[in-house]
Amino acid sequence: MVSKNLSRFVRNCLHDLKPYVPGKPIEEVKRELGLTEVIKLASNENPIGASEASKEATRKLLDNSHIYPDGNCYELKQALAQKLNISTEELIVGNGSDEIIKLLAEAFLNQGDEVIAPTPSFSEYWFAATVMNATVKGIPLKSDFTYDADAMIGAVTPKTKMMFLCSPNNPTGTYLAKTELEKILTSIPNDIVVVIDEAYFEYADAQDYPDGVQYIQDYPVVVLRTFSKIYGLAAYRVGYGVAHKDLIHYINRVREPFNVNSFAQVAAVAALADEKHVQQSKKVVEDGKALLYKAFEELGLTYIPSQANFVFVDTKKDSKQVFTKLLHRGVIIRTGDIFGQPTYIRVTFGTQKENETFIKEFREVLAEL
Amino acid sequence: MVSKNLSRFVRNCLHDLKPYVPGKPIEEVKRELGLTEVIKLASNENPIGASEASKEATRKLLDNSHIYPDGNCYELKQALAQKLNISTEELIVGNGSDEIIKLLAEAFLNQGDEVIAPTPSFSEYWFAATVMNATVKGIPLKSDFTYDADAMIGAVTPKTKMMFLCSPNNPTGTYLAKTELEKILTSIPNDIVVVIDEAYFEYADAQDYPDGVQYIQDYPVVVLRTFSKIYGLAAYRVGYGVAHKDLIHYINRVREPFNVNSFAQVAAVAALADEKHVQQSKKVVEDGKALLYKAFEELGLTYIPSQANFVFVDTKKDSKQVFTKLLHRGVIIRTGDIFGQPTYIRVTFGTQKENETFIKEFREVLAEL
Repeated sequence: MVSKNLSRFVRNCLHDLKPYVPGKPIEEVKRELGLTEVIKLASNENPIGASEASKEATRKLLDNSHIYPDGNCYELKQALAQKLNISTEELIVGNGSDEIIKLLAEAFLNQGDEVIAPTPSFSEYWFAATVMNATVKGIPLKSDFTYDADAMIGAVTPKTKMMFLCSPNNPTGTYLAKTELEKILTSIPNDIVVVIDEAYFEYADAQDYPDGVQYIQDYPVVVLRTFSKIYGLAAYRVGYGVAHKDLIHYINRVREPFNVNSFAQVAAVAALADEKHVQQSKKVVEDGKALLYKAFEELGLTYIPSQANFVFVDTKKDSKQVFTKLLHRGVIIRTGDIFGQPTYIRVTFGTQKENETFIKEFREVLAEL
Repeated sequence: MVSKNLSRFVRNCLHDLKPYVPGKPIEEVKRELGLTEVIKLASNENPIGASEASKEATRKLLDNSHIYPDGNCYELKQALAQKLNISTEELIVGNGSDEIIKLLAEAFLNQGDEVIAPTPSFSEYWFAATVMNATVKGIPLKSDFTYDADAMIGAVTPKTKMMFLCSPNNPTGTYLAKTELEKILTSIPNDIVVVIDEAYFEYADAQDYPDGVQYIQDYPVVVLRTFSKIYGLAAYRVGYGVAHKDLIHYINRVREPFNVNSFAQVAAVAALADEKHVQQSKKVVEDGKALLYKAFEELGLTYIPSQANFVFVDTKKDSKQVFTKLLHRGVIIRTGDIFGQPTYIRVTFGTQKENETFIKEFREVLAEL
């Protein structure tokens, strides 16, 4: 009875929404393949885990489990404002930064509006725009997977309302250089919201990598960052956006009142203060880069030098086959086909031991294919 | 520079969105008024806290803080499906059930669609519909604050796409009787999504209080429940929706992949299994009812018999004045003015001690006004 009438229920745009393909959970792989040892280098998680301080803050809050969160994230905003040298009014906190991507679409995109995004990039930009009946123009990265700023600028039309810039970019690890970002900001009309997704900001060390927060006073820029990556708080769901207070004011209008759980708030405050954990997390990625880059070079494979905690590498084989064979050996990575690069895989830098396991299994898998 | 161009950025409907007014947090009241002892009977939280089992499940998961949640909530759906005797495909889990309200709007409401909701009721129905440019027809409850089923049915037009039924209703504690619900379901066209918000389901004990889940096979009914109330997990943010699997399929399309944090998932599984905690939580509310009803009767005040964990009572005074005076005495309640009932207040049943404190202070405040 219900099914027959569904056609009228459902918004048209839903038919264009493809479900997100998450990295396969370790437990699921163990269950399905009967494996006991499984490592996951598929979701750009922090292999050394969260700061102990964030765990302690969580434990301390447990006796307040029954109390609603602070909808305004007072303490977390105070800590972020101090760290970033901005005002709390220039901050919005989300249930992961991916929630903020959706809030941005809800705040600013009407049916028929156009959005510009690089491709390949994070699929949530397409998702959020589609929910609001806007269309996304995907602008291909150059052949070396760096940004094509001129093409991004050239894609602007009078219908353009938003531009996503993911830097470092997922899945390529490439970034938008300061001069290129400024070229975009000064070339496009100043009524286009420019969303700079800096989920991997803390890993970037290129000299000309720009800090998006510098631009929020002069441009309608929204910078997104997350606690899911270097801070190791992916399980909690917490990210934030930084923008001019007038923009934040409107984004807040579409936010649900208790969108960020209490544990995420206290864990994030504690993680922000633990600079040592951040440095350790960076070191692990640097060590991983050294190890994996060397292995790829020995294998004669092309990889994209990364500014993030993962690397995109051309296996010269069908990445789905590489994925399946690695999976059966207890190593979960991401295939490039979902990013339009069927011979590439995306590998998160793990611990030294995980990286060594990956390299060993990867070598054997390539030899088999 | 940013402000000048805002008018083009912002969707028109945002101007119609009023920020949600949450209950004042205890810490904020202590900070602002210099009080040390403050009790909060304002947000329908569980005064005995969460189940110890849910806290223990949270502690155990802390070493996985860096791993993304299971986007499919596998374990929690298994537990819920078993408890409710339904299939996991008939379930969606949200970042609180209020997230699911927004997902429903995103899945089904187009610009110009009409939504029907009782008034006064939970403000999130208006919020979610407005975000999607739909309009809400608020149908007043009868003078005794029970549902006017005929008026709800009579409000349907060809544009109606969704009807919200909050039962027990917030803020009145009244409910929709089984015969009335069935009258609505059989009278309105079967292409209107009927959302039965049962956030307070577990407290209801009226003989003719219907279990909405019974109707999901035959009607496009979506039942919403939450772990924020009787399970005492408000800090975590977790609620769920039950509906025909075809409806769930489409609601899932607009859901972000990791909307429910990992701690919420394990805490909810543990809470579901702790029947003793649920019984204790019900007992506290029953004791609270006895105490507060008696006090109101002694004070000659009219209250609405409640099927929930709160009571709506007519103070015969300006509720804002009552609120402010109680606040200065360290007792936080909700004013009725935001629900269009300026002389009413909404009081959550607390612990015996909290209830006694409230009654003492309330008596003194009324004597002053």
